[in-house]
Amino acid sequence: MRNLALTVAYDGTGFNGFQVQPGQRTVQGVLQEALGKLEGLPEGSFPNVVGSGRTDSGVHALGQVVSFRSSRDLPDGAYLRGLNSLLPEDLVVRDVVEVPPDFNARKSAKAKEYHYWLQIAPPKLPLGFKAYEVYGKVDLDAIQEAIGQFVGTYDFAGFMATGSSIVNTVRTIYDTATMVMGSYAVFAFIADGFLYNMIRIIMGTLLDVGLGKIAPSEIKGIIESRDRLLAGPTLGPEGLYLYKVYYAEGLGLHSFKPGEKPRCNLDIVEYFT
Amino acid sequence: MRNLALTVAYDGTGFNGFQVQPGQRTVQGVLQEALGKLEGLPEGSFPNVVGSGRTDSGVHALGQVVSFRSSRDLPDGAYLRGLNSLLPEDLVVRDVVEVPPDFNARKSAKAKEYHYWLQIAPPKLPLGFKAYEVYGKVDLDAIQEAIGQFVGTYDFAGFMATGSSIVNTVRTIYDTATMVMGSYAVFAFIADGFLYNMIRIIMGTLLDVGLGKIAPSEIKGIIESRDRLLAGPTLGPEGLYLYKVYYAEGLGLHSFKPGEKPRCNLDIVEYFT
Repeated sequence: MRNLALTVAYDGTGFNGFQVQPGQRTVQGVLQEALGKLEGLPEGSFPNVVGSGRTDSGVHALGQVVSFRSSRDLPDGAYLRGLNSLLPEDLVVRDVVEVPPDFNARKSAKAKEYHYWLQIAPPKLPLGFKAYEVYGKVDLDAIQEAIGQFVGTYDFAGFMATGSSIVNTVRTIYDTATMVMGSYAVFAFIADGFLYNMIRIIMGTLLDVGLGKIAPSEIKGIIESRDRLLAGPTLGPEGLYLYKVYYAEGLGLHSFKPGEKPRCNLDIVEYFT
Repeated sequence: MRNLALTVAYDGTGFNGFQVQPGQRTVQGVLQEALGKLEGLPEGSFPNVVGSGRTDSGVHALGQVVSFRSSRDLPDGAYLRGLNSLLPEDLVVRDVVEVPPDFNARKSAKAKEYHYWLQIAPPKLPLGFKAYEVYGKVDLDAIQEAIGQFVGTYDFAGFMATGSSIVNTVRTIYDTATMVMGSYAVFAFIADGFLYNMIRIIMGTLLDVGLGKIAPSEIKGIIESRDRLLAGPTLGPEGLYLYKVYYAEGLGLHSFKPGEKPRCNLDIVEYFT
């Protein structure tokens, strides 16, 4: 059985998140069903698809990576074209590579990069990239001052949805970046991993900074408090994009050179590539 | 009665074109219905909305301009916020200005700028701007050589959908522009007006150039032939955007200074502004 990794993009609006749930339309469910058809498996059978991580209901992906074991010896191109002909318009396979037998899209991931789009001037346009719409004047300089303070290794327990059962809440954010473009501001985060709702809570906190409710100098104390109540609200999923997942070098996936500091890639041209 | 001009944006996918048609969802129909509600008119009554021109089924707009006479003395901001709260997600009012009594969005228009998006490398992404998907390798240099030959005053009868009843088929294309960005190529055209399907037929012809079926040097002859059969196919509406409509100076709408040569505005940042 070959082990294959797919890079997939989806518009999260129409999905009830990544993970399979009975009776719900999910990314994993739709992918597994298409793979079962492509591989000619009996009705109701399909390969198990492992994602680099779950994305919540409504969250988008430009470079989610999933892996599965293929029982068919199809050429890689057939997976790209064949799957895309079976998949709906809001879920697309961008790339296929064969990976070593021990590769697992979740366990092998070294880092993940997410982007969050705010629309800072109304009205919300019906064309282009989806974004979280902000009402009120936003101080982008203050946000820029605050966002850099999230870089480092911290216990981010205060930036996790309550009720989450994760034990180790220490994560390392390697880099952040900001891009302001017309009516939009886009924020990038790259880390060894993220807690449940972590970026949406960081963004809610940064938006509170932008709206003058929190001073940039308070950020470090809020992180160190580990208190969910001191952080800002959880912003909506519509502005969040899983942008890239990074793996070891030489797999044909995104990677960093040994010793290279992981950096965000926030370039609008990459959104069109 | 005040005369108002609205700048509107829409995703054309869910509309059966601009013009009202019984039983169909059209841009004009949805706008008129929302205006009737906003102005508190009796059920089934609404102001007549005049567009700068019709857009076909599936064609998008970032800067369509429409005018109508208002029987209510609402502040301009109320039209923006009030209409947007009544309109569906795929149709948005971007701006409102009061214009002189003799202004008519169609008759007063001086020039129109359209953009056409080609996706030149598969797969078609589920996020971002909609585009016409091209299969096969496209020679962008050849297209760039050919597109400039459409600039000038010509009888474009060969670049009009057959069956159109227009008598004067002479139009002046002032400028064209090309932007290549990742997997996309975007083409801009600004003219005093366009015939029915004119840009989609020009784009089909340019794509034939890009695919090696027509040489760039043949373009002038094809225009002069006035023969629809010598031009290329009509490309799909999904790549076409009505980008801006230009009027006289001083109206608070897009305009050119007297003597200024109309030029295309093809800057990706403007798509986010």
